[in-house]
Amino acid sequence: MPTQVDQIDGETVGQLSESALLARIFAVLRGSSEALVGPGDDAAVLAVPDGRVVVTTDTLVHGPDFRLAWSSGSDLGFKAATVNLADIAAMGARPTALVVALAVPEDTPVAFVADLAAGLREACDTLSPGCAVEGGDLTVSDTLTIAVTALGVLDGHEPVLRSGAQAGEVVAVCGELGRAARGLRLLFDRFRTDAGDPVPVDRSRLSPEESADLDAQLRPRPPLAHGPLAARSGASAMMDVSDGLVLDARRMADASGVTIDITDVADPDALGGGEDHALLAAFRTGDVPEGFRIIGVVRERGDTAVTVAGHGYDGTGGWDPYRDWDAHRG
Amino acid sequence: MPTQVDQIDGETVGQLSESALLARIFAVLRGSSEALVGPGDDAAVLAVPDGRVVVTTDTLVHGPDFRLAWSSGSDLGFKAATVNLADIAAMGARPTALVVALAVPEDTPVAFVADLAAGLREACDTLSPGCAVEGGDLTVSDTLTIAVTALGVLDGHEPVLRSGAQAGEVVAVCGELGRAARGLRLLFDRFRTDAGDPVPVDRSRLSPEESADLDAQLRPRPPLAHGPLAARSGASAMMDVSDGLVLDARRMADASGVTIDITDVADPDALGGGEDHALLAAFRTGDVPEGFRIIGVVRERGDTAVTVAGHGYDGTGGWDPYRDWDAHRG
Repeated sequence: MPTQVDQIDGETVGQLSESALLARIFAVLRGSSEALVGPGDDAAVLAVPDGRVVVTTDTLVHGPDFRLAWSSGSDLGFKAATVNLADIAAMGARPTALVVALAVPEDTPVAFVADLAAGLREACDTLSPGCAVEGGDLTVSDTLTIAVTALGVLDGHEPVLRSGAQAGEVVAVCGELGRAARGLRLLFDRFRTDAGDPVPVDRSRLSPEESADLDAQLRPRPPLAHGPLAARSGASAMMDVSDGLVLDARRMADASGVTIDITDVADPDALGGGEDHALLAAFRTGDVPEGFRIIGVVRERGDTAVTVAGHGYDGTGGWDPYRDWDAHRG
Repeated sequence: MPTQVDQIDGETVGQLSESALLARIFAVLRGSSEALVGPGDDAAVLAVPDGRVVVTTDTLVHGPDFRLAWSSGSDLGFKAATVNLADIAAMGARPTALVVALAVPEDTPVAFVADLAAGLREACDTLSPGCAVEGGDLTVSDTLTIAVTALGVLDGHEPVLRSGAQAGEVVAVCGELGRAARGLRLLFDRFRTDAGDPVPVDRSRLSPEESADLDAQLRPRPPLAHGPLAARSGASAMMDVSDGLVLDARRMADASGVTIDITDVADPDALGGGEDHALLAAFRTGDVPEGFRIIGVVRERGDTAVTVAGHGYDGTGGWDPYRDWDAHRG
C-alpha cells in the first residue's frame, strides 16, 4: 500500500547520509537495469544499437504540480516516470532508461523516498518493460522536486515529429481523453476542507468510474507501446496529449502547417483536459493501426489551426487549477 | 556583463506564457544544435554513432547549492552545465547534449532566465565545443532549481569506470585542486553582512589570485577534453573530483578494491576541497598523458581506502558550508 507523506514515521532524509539514502533507493530499484553501466559511477552507459538516442525531460514540482495530501510517494514516482515515458513513445520510440534528479526537504521520511523509487520502477515495469532507472541525483531543497529525464531507442525507424501531418490524412487517438481532468476536478471539488486545504482521498466516497478518473490523474497509464506501433504503421505526425486535445492538436497543426478538424469528440473534458497522455497521431486513411480511434481529419491550412466539427473552438476548454498556481501546496 | 537577479528590472517569468518564455530561451540557444531533432518536439533525437550513450544528471538548488547575491544567472547556467559535463568526461566520453529542467519562482526576471541560458551555452561552447542544449522543461516553483542531464559519446572507446584501478599503477590529476574551496571560503568570509546575509562580490577587494579562486567556485572550467584523452591513453579508472580529493579517491579505491596513497598533495584545501571537478585517474606508469600530474600510487588494499603520504587521513579535510545546509538562501 503506498503511503502518504504525513502517514509515515521513522527516519527522515536529513538523518541519513546521501550514500545511505542512495543505498535504500538502489535496494528498491536493484535488478532492473539492463544498462552497459548502471547506477553508481559518474554516469551510466546505455546501448542504443541503431546509433540514435531519444531524450526528453519533465519535472513535477510540489505546489504547481501535486499535493502531498492526495499523492503518495509511489503515485508521484509513477506519474513523474509516465509523463516522460509518454514523450518518448510520442516520438515513436521505445523508452529504455530514466535518470532522476530528486530534490527533497530534509524532513522527508526515508520511507517516502523509497516509495517514490518504487513508483518509478512500477511505471517502467508496467508501461515500458525493459526500461529502468539508470542514474540519478539526490539533493536537499525546500521544495520537493522530481526532475526525470527519459531516454529511448527508435529500433531503426524514423522519429515521428509533430510537423508531418498532411491534408487528406486522418487524426487518431490511442488512450483516454478527459479522464485525468475529471480526476483532478474530483480532488479539488471533493477532497478539500472549506478553507481549501487538501485532505486525503476517501475512496469509499467514489463510484468505480470516479475512482478510475482519480487513478488517471494520480497514476496515468497511457498505452505507450502504441507509440512505436504507430511509427511502424506509418504515422506522419505524433505527440502525446499532455495539455489538452485542442491545445496540443493546435501545436501539431501549427508545426505541420495544416488545420486539424476534430469531428468525433464533443465532450469538453475530452477536448480540453490534459494529463491523460494519450497519443495523438496523423495517418493516411487505411494506415490507422489497432488501438487508435479516428477523431478527425487533416485539412489544408485555414483561418485557424484547429476546428471542432468544422467550427472554431474558443478557450482552453479545460480546467486546471494547478496551471495558474495559487501558491498553495498541501 | 552577467547580471545578478536583484539588479534586473523588467518582465518576470509570471508575466509571460511558457511558450513566450521558451522563445526567449531558444533565442539565446539558437544555432548551437547539431541534433537530428533539436528542441521543440516531444523529445530530441541525437546521433550516437557507436551505439552507446553516456548519461548523467546533477542539480543545483537555491539554498544548499548557491546564493543569488553571489552568482549571476550566467554563472549558475555555466556551473550547472559544467558539473554535468565533467561527469561525462570522467567516463572518458565526449559530451554532446544537455537537457535542462528549470524550475523558477514566478517573480524571476525573464532577463535572469535568458542569462542562465547564455551561461549554459557558454559552458558548452567553452568546455565541450559541439555540445548544446537540445531540450528542456520549464516550470514554476518556490525554489529556483536547475536540473541538468548531460549525454555523451564514447567514440569507440570503452567507458572508464571507478572500479578499474590496480595495484602498481599511479594516480594522476588533471585540473585544479582546492581552488573552488578557497573561492567558497572567500564568499562566506568576506561577502556577508555581520548577520550572515550574502552581499554582492566587490572584485576590487580581491587579489588576482583570489579572483581566480572565486571564478573556480562560481564558474569552474575543468579541462574536460582530457577525459577522452585519458581513456585513449589507457586510464584504468577515472572520476571527477566533485566532493574532495580524499573523499573521491576513497570512492575509487573502494570500487576498485585497492588502497590509494596520495603522495604529492599536502595542502588541506587540495586534499579536502571539492567542486573543482578536476579529473582523477589511474594509469600504468608510462601511460600518463600530457596534462595529468602524478599525485599518488595504487597499492594492494590495506586497512584504509586512502592514505596520505602513507598515513591515514581523518576527517573530510574540507570546508563546505552548503553541505550541511543551514536553510539560508540569499
